[in-house]
Amino acid sequence: MSGFSVTPVEGLPELREGDDLAGLIVERTELEDGDVVVVAQKAVSKVEGRVVALAGIEPSEQAVELAAGLADPRRIQVILDESTELVRVRPPLLIARTKHGFVCGSAGVDASNAPEPETVVLLPLDSDASAARLREELRERTGANVGVIVTDSFGRPWRAGTTDVAIGAAGVEVLRILDGERDPAGYELHATRMALGDEIAGAAQLVFGKLDRVPVAVIRGLDVLGDMQGADLVIPPETDLFR
Amino acid sequence: MSGFSVTPVEGLPELREGDDLAGLIVERTELEDGDVVVVAQKAVSKVEGRVVALAGIEPSEQAVELAAGLADPRRIQVILDESTELVRVRPPLLIARTKHGFVCGSAGVDASNAPEPETVVLLPLDSDASAARLREELRERTGANVGVIVTDSFGRPWRAGTTDVAIGAAGVEVLRILDGERDPAGYELHATRMALGDEIAGAAQLVFGKLDRVPVAVIRGLDVLGDMQGADLVIPPETDLFR
Repeated sequence: MSGFSVTPVEGLPELREGDDLAGLIVERTELEDGDVVVVAQKAVSKVEGRVVALAGIEPSEQAVELAAGLADPRRIQVILDESTELVRVRPPLLIARTKHGFVCGSAGVDASNAPEPETVVLLPLDSDASAARLREELRERTGANVGVIVTDSFGRPWRAGTTDVAIGAAGVEVLRILDGERDPAGYELHATRMALGDEIAGAAQLVFGKLDRVPVAVIRGLDVLGDMQGADLVIPPETDLFR
Repeated sequence: MSGFSVTPVEGLPELREGDDLAGLIVERTELEDGDVVVVAQKAVSKVEGRVVALAGIEPSEQAVELAAGLADPRRIQVILDESTELVRVRPPLLIARTKHGFVCGSAGVDASNAPEPETVVLLPLDSDASAARLREELRERTGANVGVIVTDSFGRPWRAGTTDVAIGAAGVEVLRILDGERDPAGYELHATRMALGDEIAGAAQLVFGKLDRVPVAVIRGLDVLGDMQGADLVIPPETDLFR
């Protein structure tokens, strides 16, 4: 095991709905079997047209209340539309559970890096399907068997700042489960489950930056291809001791 | 920006109290200015002698109760001794706040990979001081200006599995704060704070594995040296919206 590399895919244009993301990637990098292609959510959402113009949004009374005069009530309305549950509320800040089961700020709705003013970008409708589609398209173009991870920046309790996590994945062992295996001293490793998918997402974020418009990175040298998806990293509430 | 590499430092012996960790590292790798040396907590704790023999522990009534006949009450007692607060309790599982302010399973007390049976390994007493000491020793040996991060595997709410986070750091920009900066469209990035230290810790964990006895990795190619420490990643409870 000689380590791994994280390489940004540079020179991508500003992305728009309908753009051929797989094509834009393969023009800029040589993929190999075993690579993991990591794509920031906003790139995926943009090519999938998951962008909403605030002009067309009519805020509800609840949205106006939650905006508290500090945020655009139309943006709050979009957040409510994307949520199944508000987990924490401190107007105008909302932590919500999304339809995918993610718990994150603003239900993943983001105005930064939006393609136009007065628009917001939503999470992909089905981020695992997005990852699977991109994986298939990359394989068709290159013949390479790669994994794909779609990431977003999530806050978390007890720790400052955000880390990128895998909100979608295809062909990657996102969770390595060592239950029952033994360490070199013979101690059984109970319930050791490593969230490789989230660690890979975080590694890619280190090259994305927030201002540099580099939303794609290639991870090479890890032995992590497998048959899981991003949903495998969402913990069912009833088994979540940390909740 | 051409990406970065994560390289394990291989061939380290089983570590014991008093071992010269800096010396063992520099014998096995060439460090350069700007590298970040990432060390798993257990390696640091072992050389610092943060290992407790259960034979000398007298469990309290509370420890016996929390063990619930499912765990060694002496190990539970050690966890209580390392904790300032129990955050979640489902006997014998405990999520605790440590004296450092970390919230994690078993207050970081771990029996796996312990040097002897019937012993447990504690977190370093002051993991930022451990990182600073190692950084200084590496600089003395090599002349290289490197950052150091000490990591441990933490669970988190809402997500499956653990990711490694930075429980100690020296000379690294563990939190990148973009408040007030603007994205290419001119949108102000409110309160964008990226936990680079935790993302670097997770990247290193991808090469540590749990069974391979590789507790040190070198990150090369990131521009992340700075003047912060691990404590900068602990969020004060009163400002923690996610809590």
